Amino acid sequence: MSKVEKKVVTEKIILGLDPGTNIMGYGVIHVQLGKVKLLQFGVIQLGKVGAHELKLKKIFDRVLSLVDEFHPDQVALEAPFFGKNVQSMLKLGRAQGVAMSAALYREVPITEYAPKKVKQSVTGNGNASKEQVAKMLMQIFNLKEIPKLFDASDALAVALCHHYQNGALKKQEQVMG
Amino acid sequence: MSKVEKKVVTEKIILGLDPGTNIMGYGVIHVQLGKVKLLQFGVIQLGKVGAHELKLKKIFDRVLSLVDEFHPDQVALEAPFFGKNVQSMLKLGRAQGVAMSAALYREVPITEYAPKKVKQSVTGNGNASKEQVAKMLMQIFNLKEIPKLFDASDALAVALCHHYQNGALKKQEQVMG
Repeated sequence: MSKVEKKVVTEKIILGLDPGTNIMGYGVIHVQLGKVKLLQFGVIQLGKVGAHELKLKKIFDRVLSLVDEFHPDQVALEAPFFGKNVQSMLKLGRAQGVAMSAALYREVPITEYAPKKVKQSVTGNGNASKEQVAKMLMQIFNLKEIPKLFDASDALAVALCHHYQNGALKKQEQVMG
Repeated sequence: MSKVEKKVVTEKIILGLDPGTNIMGYGVIHVQLGKVKLLQFGVIQLGKVGAHELKLKKIFDRVLSLVDEFHPDQVALEAPFFGKNVQSMLKLGRAQGVAMSAALYREVPITEYAPKKVKQSVTGNGNASKEQVAKMLMQIFNLKEIPKLFDASDALAVALCHHYQNGALKKQEQVMG
């Protein structure tokens, strides 16, 4: 009887989210054998949706559909802990809570990162501009042009940050024949 | 052929929620022909749940199960718009957003009321204490003893407030033979 060699292949999908009250960025990456591949990134426009609760419903529905489409192993959330005033923080908290609900509903664990941490992790400089972050992502993912919407590139950055930070600790292992 | 008389019976179930970061109150009332009946009220304890995201998941799961158990036509939310600091408002916003998600996921419309509005509506005094609100609820719902947990009575109060405020405008009509 011949012995079949088994290779342990680590593979992971990370959904990065940058929830805001008017626009929400998302980025999905696939990590396998240390190689990072961009699956999709973009924004969910909320500005045109009138009532506050309709915005929240849209966030929930779209995040749930992203989770159901890509089946991420982890969600990484860009979460500022300080803001201008209590009013804006309440609104931001709601948008974050709704986005988190959709991930938690599907039992996907969430890790939060402060914006400074994301910038530090991706560019090496915690005070990098959004444009600098976007340019670094262009290089890493071999994009032809710089992402126009920084909400999308910020979301992609937080997914990448999660991979850099503790991806190695929490990786899912999958045995392939 | 005899003519069958049809009566238009208005009937509605309102779920009141008072979301907090450590404890969440809920109260369910049934309104029919102007009569208000208490179906259930209580609290969801969150203090013992360790991680922040586990608290949020518990809020989502419990609100979803309340919605699935009682099939409310409306959710009424007690929502303070001002708080001590941005940190606490972010946390409160998340708790609110998660609770709202569960209602929105089941397509139940949400109406928000400021605490002052709830007190005014239930007791006639916008500056009433939580105890005064609870005592008024004792009378209205013919409770044997004063509710011990004000989170529960506050949630019941916001459900009643919603009935008093615009319940008549948005009532669901049901034709019974």
